[in-house]
Amino acid sequence: MKPALPFVLPVSKKLRAEALLQWNDRTKPLGSLGRLEAVTADVCAVQATLQPVTSPKSVVLFAADHGVARLGVSAYPQEVTRQMAANFVGGGAAINVLARYQQANLEVVDVGICGEPVPGVLNRRVCQGTRNFLEIAAMTDEEMVKALEVGLVRANAAAAKGTVIVAAGEMGIGNTASAAALLCLLTGADSHDAVGRGTGVDDEGLMRKRAMVQQAVERHSACRNNPEAALAAVGGLEIAALCGFYIGAAANKMVIVVDGFICTVAALVACRISPAVRDYMLFGHQSAEQGHKLALGALNAEPLLQLDMRLGEASGAALAFSIIDASVLLFLQMATFSAAGVSTAR
Amino acid sequence: MKPALPFVLPVSKKLRAEALLQWNDRTKPLGSLGRLEAVTADVCAVQATLQPVTSPKSVVLFAADHGVARLGVSAYPQEVTRQMAANFVGGGAAINVLARYQQANLEVVDVGICGEPVPGVLNRRVCQGTRNFLEIAAMTDEEMVKALEVGLVRANAAAAKGTVIVAAGEMGIGNTASAAALLCLLTGADSHDAVGRGTGVDDEGLMRKRAMVQQAVERHSACRNNPEAALAAVGGLEIAALCGFYIGAAANKMVIVVDGFICTVAALVACRISPAVRDYMLFGHQSAEQGHKLALGALNAEPLLQLDMRLGEASGAALAFSIIDASVLLFLQMATFSAAGVSTAR
Repeated sequence: MKPALPFVLPVSKKLRAEALLQWNDRTKPLGSLGRLEAVTADVCAVQATLQPVTSPKSVVLFAADHGVARLGVSAYPQEVTRQMAANFVGGGAAINVLARYQQANLEVVDVGICGEPVPGVLNRRVCQGTRNFLEIAAMTDEEMVKALEVGLVRANAAAAKGTVIVAAGEMGIGNTASAAALLCLLTGADSHDAVGRGTGVDDEGLMRKRAMVQQAVERHSACRNNPEAALAAVGGLEIAALCGFYIGAAANKMVIVVDGFICTVAALVACRISPAVRDYMLFGHQSAEQGHKLALGALNAEPLLQLDMRLGEASGAALAFSIIDASVLLFLQMATFSAAGVSTAR
Repeated sequence: MKPALPFVLPVSKKLRAEALLQWNDRTKPLGSLGRLEAVTADVCAVQATLQPVTSPKSVVLFAADHGVARLGVSAYPQEVTRQMAANFVGGGAAINVLARYQQANLEVVDVGICGEPVPGVLNRRVCQGTRNFLEIAAMTDEEMVKALEVGLVRANAAAAKGTVIVAAGEMGIGNTASAAALLCLLTGADSHDAVGRGTGVDDEGLMRKRAMVQQAVERHSACRNNPEAALAAVGGLEIAALCGFYIGAAANKMVIVVDGFICTVAALVACRISPAVRDYMLFGHQSAEQGHKLALGALNAEPLLQLDMRLGEASGAALAFSIIDASVLLFLQMATFSAAGVSTAR
């Protein structure tokens, strides 16, 4: 079963080049703002303008549970997914602080948390958690498509409000195991390299987690290099929603700031399904989670921040909003050599 | 001649440890905010409190000219120092945009620009540019001390206004050559490794610059490992002012955010003169200028951002203000596990 997905156009290479050229008129040595110059050019290309804007911004969190969480792949019990969804609504999580700091709208979406729905969380449950992917596919094709559509609709909703930059985040105990299995199926990575400590399993837990991911990859090896099938087999409801969100955001020509390991794997699935989505993506940070480097490499992506964060919740992406804001303001507000009466290089 | 310098006390190791411990109550996996946790602990230690603050902030730019600039060590002519000082006053430089974005006060100080004083720039000229350090010491001891005191007084002035975080920046055509020579004299680094392209000299210019720095290091080799003497011999008026500013900022218990290559070399001089100054320092970014890694290494410093910037003007430090702000807000505003009803790790 194939989802009905919007068509995503590549961004304007011409505008990107024009933006880079325009940087050279600003009163600074050529190229001296380094990656900030490229960031602005990327934003210009997405927005098809040399007058880029960075607000309104939106952060959307997708939360769901994982069948494998009951097998001890996480340092935290499964109910933490639900508890943290409540914490997001209560305003006490890291992403709440960061969204306020960045003046970004924050939305929390339940794509399949176990137990009673959490008041204040947008209820878009497909089912209560995925199945144990060691035994069977985590989702049916139908569930995967529904979860993907949840993300797609949230992207459309953000665009309808005029949002120009989005970050998505996830909450789901067990989801680094799911993302690692997905990464292995899509890139051929070794489970030993793709599996890290997630929220902090100990050495024994890490060995168990690696073995389980390896087992899942072998069990579902028929899905290798098939993004939709792999997503259904070993993915999560929130990972499918992220994937749909990224495709929807690109279709709506919003700048996407990708967060850490799980989000980057979801981004990889999205780009495998619809390669032009990659043009709309900036990568917020390099997570301390071990598999993130592999996932970034598969997307030829260089993250903006390297701060050893590994929290999820879009926290690294939201922090990187500052770099994007500053880049665009510099581009728009710096004086030109001629206007400021400054001599150019010899 | 020794400058009259304030005494700098080390920060509280106990408060730093307490802050790190308090992070563990916040609703997130242990250690998952990575370097943000250490940044907050550093701020807590400097401010001797578990209720850290990050404003008011101040950026002070020190500008001066260099005798060696006339020998072709830069891609830009010497008059650009003066022109850029005017641009800072006019509001069109990168640091103007970033200071506005970060709501930081901005002050521009002329420690020794050549030519007519620039209206709007605080005139604290010691002399009009340094001497050519290939022939003679760049500054007399008296000039060096006066420049150092200019920085010290600006730090006191910032403190008197209630400033809690400061960044300093520099403008001075030729000053990467001066900083490279200083770095070689203080660390024994090879001039080949310490000298980079600065604002962008070509291959031939780079070879010439390396040879000159090597010549200066040999000429003034008696100053090896003597911070004051090396500063006078091959430093710059703005580098001496930066050094005094850092010592003064630490004496006033302000958090210091060090900018790129030249500032880090000035920070190294300050820490060699008064080692406790290091406790007050965060490092804004890893510059693309080749010698910066060596200078950071000599201070055992890990910068917050790696964005291939090489602009100076405190631009990297000012950009890093966002990371510090966000770290402190997270520390102050995140919910505890018990308050949010979230289960802790197993």
